[in-house]
Amino acid sequence: MIHFSINKSYFLQALNTTKRAISHKNAIPVLSTVKIDVTTEGITLTGSNGQISIENFIATKEENAGLLVTSPGAILLEATFFINVVSSLPDVTLDFKEIEKNQIVLTSGKSEITLKGKDAEQYPRLQDMQAENPLVLETKVLKDVINETAFAASLQESRPILTGVHLVLSDHQSLKTVATDSHRLSQRKLSLEKASDNFDVVIPSRSLREFSAVFTDDIETVEIFFANNQILFRSDNISFYTRLLEGNYPDTDRLIPSEFNTVISFNRDHLRSAMERARILSNATQNGTVKLEVTNGVVSAHVNSPEVGQVHEELDSLSVTGEDLTISFNPTYLIDALKAIDSDQVTISFISAVRPFTLVPAEDQGEFIQLITPVRTN
Amino acid sequence: MIHFSINKSYFLQALNTTKRAISHKNAIPVLSTVKIDVTTEGITLTGSNGQISIENFIATKEENAGLLVTSPGAILLEATFFINVVSSLPDVTLDFKEIEKNQIVLTSGKSEITLKGKDAEQYPRLQDMQAENPLVLETKVLKDVINETAFAASLQESRPILTGVHLVLSDHQSLKTVATDSHRLSQRKLSLEKASDNFDVVIPSRSLREFSAVFTDDIETVEIFFANNQILFRSDNISFYTRLLEGNYPDTDRLIPSEFNTVISFNRDHLRSAMERARILSNATQNGTVKLEVTNGVVSAHVNSPEVGQVHEELDSLSVTGEDLTISFNPTYLIDALKAIDSDQVTISFISAVRPFTLVPAEDQGEFIQLITPVRTN
Repeated sequence: MIHFSINKSYFLQALNTTKRAISHKNAIPVLSTVKIDVTTEGITLTGSNGQISIENFIATKEENAGLLVTSPGAILLEATFFINVVSSLPDVTLDFKEIEKNQIVLTSGKSEITLKGKDAEQYPRLQDMQAENPLVLETKVLKDVINETAFAASLQESRPILTGVHLVLSDHQSLKTVATDSHRLSQRKLSLEKASDNFDVVIPSRSLREFSAVFTDDIETVEIFFANNQILFRSDNISFYTRLLEGNYPDTDRLIPSEFNTVISFNRDHLRSAMERARILSNATQNGTVKLEVTNGVVSAHVNSPEVGQVHEELDSLSVTGEDLTISFNPTYLIDALKAIDSDQVTISFISAVRPFTLVPAEDQGEFIQLITPVRTN
Repeated sequence: MIHFSINKSYFLQALNTTKRAISHKNAIPVLSTVKIDVTTEGITLTGSNGQISIENFIATKEENAGLLVTSPGAILLEATFFINVVSSLPDVTLDFKEIEKNQIVLTSGKSEITLKGKDAEQYPRLQDMQAENPLVLETKVLKDVINETAFAASLQESRPILTGVHLVLSDHQSLKTVATDSHRLSQRKLSLEKASDNFDVVIPSRSLREFSAVFTDDIETVEIFFANNQILFRSDNISFYTRLLEGNYPDTDRLIPSEFNTVISFNRDHLRSAMERARILSNATQNGTVKLEVTNGVVSAHVNSPEVGQVHEELDSLSVTGEDLTISFNPTYLIDALKAIDSDQVTISFISAVRPFTLVPAEDQGEFIQLITPVRTN
């Protein structure tokens, strides 16, 4: 019969992290619970939606947790409900005591709340994952890479593999990360400091966004373990599991052009505001595009909606080289691409009105490149 | 043909105020537009959803507006769309010019956006309202009164009159404001400094909430004009019209008890947190109630949900007088009531388990009273 006391805020924060994996309306009822597993070493909180699973460990030796375990055990509690109850408690600490099988009392100040739980044996077992030589990355580096690519993955299930992000380690040190929805693509390369086993996996972009939310900036490094159809990201206290997407990721290398006819550099923020203005009107047009014109070194943007109105704007460019050009595209793709770039300046390179164009940050060494497919208009 | 230039932020703020009256999906298409009426004195922006109408005046003499009118005129522009376009403009000022009938060009920096509008003649005329002796109130006083009562109005259309707030001026100086949804009631009385004509109106609570959002705290006083089926709140720049509810408001005076058998004082915030804890569990019970028990001067709260669990809590009371009591009620009504009270201490007075109980702020002079009806349980 479980009995422990803990600092309320610390407990609540750990619960909320675990809850990111828990869906309130899961088809499998037991997955709407949080598993609370108490040993003399500490408490493990587990949540899962069948795709992502999170284990969060609170150690008795962690001073801020104020955790005092009197008696170990395990129980399942309705996650949302339990978190609401904990956050409503009046005192800075709470006492958690199992008074009969699967029934607990929370005591805090003068408040005494009895809750019914479920048998911990009902909870599905998570896959055991071990590796002698896990990949170790700085959390910030991994989160940056996710930020730069995951947005370009597809949101549509028509080609499920494109809803993932393709991560490939080759030559034991070259990491390539790619995502595409077939209209735009984002690719980031990185050379690892330490050699690791090669891998080639496709991770759901949604799982990666959750990873970024769960692994806060105070967690310096993350260990990565691979299994057949799963990947595990692990820090001292948090284990984050996600299933992998099955199937072959398309060969994207052949899509990336290397010779161009028109090259323009822009201030990133100027270009982004201009595209946001253009988008307000292009949203009201049939094909939703903005037209970019390059004429004698002058770059301008145009939208024409017969019903609503027009935009005409000369864009501030930092440099223009090559041929004149007229090209149409969806401004949202360019806005998304600019949001993913950390540099103040960007270079956009065109082949022709019907071929994808590339975006790279200024002074890039071929490590971060994005591709946007134009829309043919007549 | 209209032509003016104006400070973008000032214009945007005035547009956003006006937009509070404009519904994007109004059944009458012209009501999704904002009317822009330009004279040499300034610009009037008008928006309406048929229930509420707002006129917002920007004077040429208002220095912060940076308004320069070159040529007057009027036009209708799709409100949401136009506001999005204005907020996207790059420069601190914008130039608004009608280039042909119902077609305008906005110029700001290097950006040039052409928009199509509609003929201003299509816009419905607002009722002309004048009074020689309008009621003048401090905005803050009126907003406080709204805050203390409007929440208690009904959200259901089954008895439309209860969706309004009843305002009555009698003896030329005694203002009484009441709202009730038949489960709870809130009444605020106020003695006006200056005598005015008596009135008796029922204003939709929704309109009053919009009024509070539109009349910001920098507007010191508001003039109130009455017409047959409308009321107008007016400041220097803003005219806020709302229709009134028709029908007789029920006689609420007879509902308010004056003799009690049990009287308890609480710290407002303590009581509110306890009720919020109780509500988490009472939401999971069939009748959604919390049970309050008074036994030998000790007050306690109890919820029992057979499926989920229980709450037992001794409440910190400041004083208890009178008989022992057991009474059940919906904790949300008590939480709402406590939120409306500005005082740190509240006094709750009971007659019996089946009669409504009252809430008043500590040291109240009979000016602010709330009523909550208990729920009979067996």
